[in-house]
Amino acid sequence: MRENELIDWISQNVGKHPSVPLGIGDDMAMVHVPTGEVLLKIDQALDQVHFDLRTHSPAQAGRKAVNRCLSDCAAMACLPAAFLVSVALPRGFDVSKAKELFIGCRDAAAVFDCPLVGGDTAVWDQRLAISVAAMGASTGRTITRNTAEPGDAICVSGQLGGSILSRHMNFVPRVKLSRELIHGLRLHALMDISDGLAMDLQRLLSASKCGATIYADKIPIHPDAIKLAETDGKPAIWHAMCDGEDYELLFTISISETEKLKTLSLEAPISVIGTINKTSDLVFLDKTGAKIPWPEGGWEHGAMENREPQTVDKTQAI
Amino acid sequence: MRENELIDWISQNVGKHPSVPLGIGDDMAMVHVPTGEVLLKIDQALDQVHFDLRTHSPAQAGRKAVNRCLSDCAAMACLPAAFLVSVALPRGFDVSKAKELFIGCRDAAAVFDCPLVGGDTAVWDQRLAISVAAMGASTGRTITRNTAEPGDAICVSGQLGGSILSRHMNFVPRVKLSRELIHGLRLHALMDISDGLAMDLQRLLSASKCGATIYADKIPIHPDAIKLAETDGKPAIWHAMCDGEDYELLFTISISETEKLKTLSLEAPISVIGTINKTSDLVFLDKTGAKIPWPEGGWEHGAMENREPQTVDKTQAI
Repeated sequence: MRENELIDWISQNVGKHPSVPLGIGDDMAMVHVPTGEVLLKIDQALDQVHFDLRTHSPAQAGRKAVNRCLSDCAAMACLPAAFLVSVALPRGFDVSKAKELFIGCRDAAAVFDCPLVGGDTAVWDQRLAISVAAMGASTGRTITRNTAEPGDAICVSGQLGGSILSRHMNFVPRVKLSRELIHGLRLHALMDISDGLAMDLQRLLSASKCGATIYADKIPIHPDAIKLAETDGKPAIWHAMCDGEDYELLFTISISETEKLKTLSLEAPISVIGTINKTSDLVFLDKTGAKIPWPEGGWEHGAMENREPQTVDKTQAI
Repeated sequence: MRENELIDWISQNVGKHPSVPLGIGDDMAMVHVPTGEVLLKIDQALDQVHFDLRTHSPAQAGRKAVNRCLSDCAAMACLPAAFLVSVALPRGFDVSKAKELFIGCRDAAAVFDCPLVGGDTAVWDQRLAISVAAMGASTGRTITRNTAEPGDAICVSGQLGGSILSRHMNFVPRVKLSRELIHGLRLHALMDISDGLAMDLQRLLSASKCGATIYADKIPIHPDAIKLAETDGKPAIWHAMCDGEDYELLFTISISETEKLKTLSLEAPISVIGTINKTSDLVFLDKTGAKIPWPEGGWEHGAMENREPQTVDKTQAI
């Protein structure tokens, strides 16, 4: 099969979408957007960094690459509107695998009615590299990370930690939950947790120019974090706070809004883990009320540093 | 330097842009778009495929990666509105080189007032891979490749062939020329020539469901194609038609519009190389009017095939 044939096959298997008057086949795709603003993101998934073709299928790799971007759409409370994918294929990569990869990408986005509108394939003698760019349509209620307010309750969805055991490959991006939250609550600040709560909360605080008090016993610990703790001896809460790739939501709301949380029907449980402070202090309390150190070691990856390779998020959005 | 520091440095060196209310620093960037539709593209540039870090600087690599996407904006007659870049950095890649790469990307797009609005960096133990996604703002006059009409004159900008000698790294994407053409002429079909005229013209004809008569002696041959012909023995016209990475424009206009070409002040010379036929035949004539075979060998890269590695375009848009 020649590359043009693969692309023809992809074109035929994308399907039509009402918001895409011009899809695959020209120099660029044309996409209708409902308002005068769009949201944009690029992210990558690399073999033996974010996935491992020795154990994961090309479809899983494609799905993860797309879901990482969709998690960012959730994090901005926008609607995924279109995506593009570039793949650098290892020389000799089987055509059936390339199709599988494409199907993984397409189907992950189709869950949220988000069409593939273009891409690029190239061949090289290095490992598989996938880049996904997503465009989100603003619904007029984009929520950023820099708008937390003193007194806010700090909330997280789901359970955290230990995603390396399996969830990092098959998480569901919180696009639906994000819609539910934005319809049911007045969100102040919102982001996704991709580099570990310990680091991502600090980013939210830094962007919002405030501090927080966090209660250790309120952190929702995933059973996989406990499982991991049993094997490596680190505390489960360390895993819950420092492991990467939870792809859960972190948000703040007025304390008065927390009552509403109990009445909403939501895709995932929400935990209130603390409050926003006016000062920049980040206070971490154990269940006795004693101050304990904030865990370090979230995924701040030194791009310039040598670290041990791990199949978990090592990227950093700019 | 930690990766967060690199990203802070990049954020500080991007600058503000009036159409970007929310730039680098959140989960996605927000960009204002003037109309209800946008144009989207992703493309990649890989070390030792599209550039070679053994001879090219990171700034050159970044510039080329961006300019490839901007050439697609020219090819759709849209205005480059924003771009994103993902980079997979080889482990140990020097921070100064990463900055240089970023500056190359930023400055290439700044020529056309196109802001960098986001990106992603990751580290792996493979070669440098760059992906660029570009968004174009439609001006309401998007020109596609499927709208050539029988009787049209077929035109190309600049001179073709031999770009491997140097132009593939330092071409100027024809964004300005594209604007000049769309303001001065009624373009019927438009695309850029990235995989060689021989292949790209066939794509235009196939999309427009028509054929063409092309005059070999009207093809504008670049001096570099002649130079290359002297060393490898292939005819210069073969290089002009089959070499990749010209990044010139290929377009069609009514015959009556060709007179206007002489009156316009344009960024590059335009050659009328033939006419569109109603039938699907592709007729290639030498200067005596005799039929000669259409050259084969444009950059249709079999993604699944093993070919000799060459530092020239080996990608294929989907």
